[in-house]
Amino acid sequence: MTESEFIALMRGIAGDPAARGLEDDAAVMEFGDRTLVLTHDMIVEGVHFLGKDPPGDVAWKLLAVNLSDLAAKGARPVGALLGYTLGEADWDRAFAEGLKSAASAFGIALLGGDTVSAPTGSARTFGLTAIGEAAGAVPSRAGARAGDHLWVSGTIGDSGAGLKLLKAGIAGGRSLVERYRNPRPRLEAGQRLAPLVGAMMDVSDGLLIDSGRMAAASKAAIRIDIGLIPLSEAFLGAMGEAREARLFAASAGDDYELLFAAAPERSPEINGLADEIGLPLSRIGEIEAGEGLSLCDGDEPIALPDRLGWEHR
Amino acid sequence: MTESEFIALMRGIAGDPAARGLEDDAAVMEFGDRTLVLTHDMIVEGVHFLGKDPPGDVAWKLLAVNLSDLAAKGARPVGALLGYTLGEADWDRAFAEGLKSAASAFGIALLGGDTVSAPTGSARTFGLTAIGEAAGAVPSRAGARAGDHLWVSGTIGDSGAGLKLLKAGIAGGRSLVERYRNPRPRLEAGQRLAPLVGAMMDVSDGLLIDSGRMAAASKAAIRIDIGLIPLSEAFLGAMGEAREARLFAASAGDDYELLFAAAPERSPEINGLADEIGLPLSRIGEIEAGEGLSLCDGDEPIALPDRLGWEHR
Repeated sequence: MTESEFIALMRGIAGDPAARGLEDDAAVMEFGDRTLVLTHDMIVEGVHFLGKDPPGDVAWKLLAVNLSDLAAKGARPVGALLGYTLGEADWDRAFAEGLKSAASAFGIALLGGDTVSAPTGSARTFGLTAIGEAAGAVPSRAGARAGDHLWVSGTIGDSGAGLKLLKAGIAGGRSLVERYRNPRPRLEAGQRLAPLVGAMMDVSDGLLIDSGRMAAASKAAIRIDIGLIPLSEAFLGAMGEAREARLFAASAGDDYELLFAAAPERSPEINGLADEIGLPLSRIGEIEAGEGLSLCDGDEPIALPDRLGWEHR
Repeated sequence: MTESEFIALMRGIAGDPAARGLEDDAAVMEFGDRTLVLTHDMIVEGVHFLGKDPPGDVAWKLLAVNLSDLAAKGARPVGALLGYTLGEADWDRAFAEGLKSAASAFGIALLGGDTVSAPTGSARTFGLTAIGEAAGAVPSRAGARAGDHLWVSGTIGDSGAGLKLLKAGIAGGRSLVERYRNPRPRLEAGQRLAPLVGAMMDVSDGLLIDSGRMAAASKAAIRIDIGLIPLSEAFLGAMGEAREARLFAASAGDDYELLFAAAPERSPEINGLADEIGLPLSRIGEIEAGEGLSLCDGDEPIALPDRLGWEHR
């Protein structure tokens, strides 16, 4: 069964408004006079990470990808629960060290969880539940409106370029590999942007595929100018400036940047925030009436690539 | 690495009081003026369930075991997040049906989660996070005091007897098999008992091993009279009344009953509650000064069996 078929089956028991129709990055639940934001992501050996990946990086990424979902909802992380499949002692010890580093970097405490054993030779699976608190309205993916500008935080494609270098066995590109191995969820930016945006989500599967999801959820069209996609010096050095490099960046995924739509009159505040927190926030396109995703490069319309990002993971 | 070694490593990042030192059934977090109770349990194919088990029962059990942790903390369930490894379409469909039945039986909504794929031939792993709310003080495992009485809800050993019948291919014992396949977390009893008890936990790995854990957490000794362990008519019919049958019941596990310690003066209220909600609540032993678990059968002290329950799962 595919992911979307299974999610369709699950909708029957997800009628609570907190579930947001199982279409958002996280669940958002009013609890007393406070707002809880809850997300759970899993990673599987051989699918989301390789047995030979450094275990500390696997731990870091497991926590970071969940916190990125909280960031996209403007939430402050308050704790995590870990589901862990025990393995070889050295691996487990290095995983624990990596989780410790990441938890300390992001200021989050482990609150509980479960450890299990798996049959020998079986792919190990880890899950993490992140619990956050939102201070005000919590942006969804569905709030982009025709006339809004589309923005993205940081730079795009670094992680994908880092993975490409790793796979090719090419030394160098350290900052790119670091982006792949130790992504930094945009927690502060998410909390500061939440009151300014109409829609927000994180870029995990690829800028293009995730933009398409925002367009579908918002029942609007999105046009992206690939010439405006922010690329780092390191990315340009490794991958070049050709259109192919830009399309690679836009579909590579694992960016864990924030993608958001905001009314044009919010632009001065957004630009001011970028200066204040020292994180680039770049306008890369527009929300329009209609549906679907389209691309241009300056004035020139260009075709969507065959692959927009990761479809099922 | 063993579970307890890994948990010891995790304590370094679990200093938040909500984590309860990773020694309780669930995390308990003050959130505004409300109290959140959070738990996450995983199940693995070939370890916690078999590929040929009815998928609907696997789903039921995944939800029930987590809700049993909430029950043990006196919490009302408010939602769940599911981590699901996709498999064959018919299996997934039957799992979804089972989860729907259980969610409806326990009045809980699915709020979100994640679906992943696993490499072919790999054991599938599922995780569930249950979120609950507690109305007052939340009993821990550590609050049993010398002089308290030890109590257990319902009947013990039914599930273990059901599994034994299933494994032996013996037809019959339907109510026992039902207890194994579709356990009923004691949610109402847990909420009503919470203000009356000093310590409470659920019996998942076995009455004896779990009692030993309560004794260790409470820095006290526990003595259980195995003649007082409540057994069902169905259990007695299938397993007999010999001491071996009682010891089997006390170490079989999968009971999902409530084990609790309460001051003697609470006994009338506890007995009154049992009548009111129609669930047996049986006094089975005492909390004493000292440490460790001991057994008797009426006046006769008896040795602990070699196996007290499930050690690592």
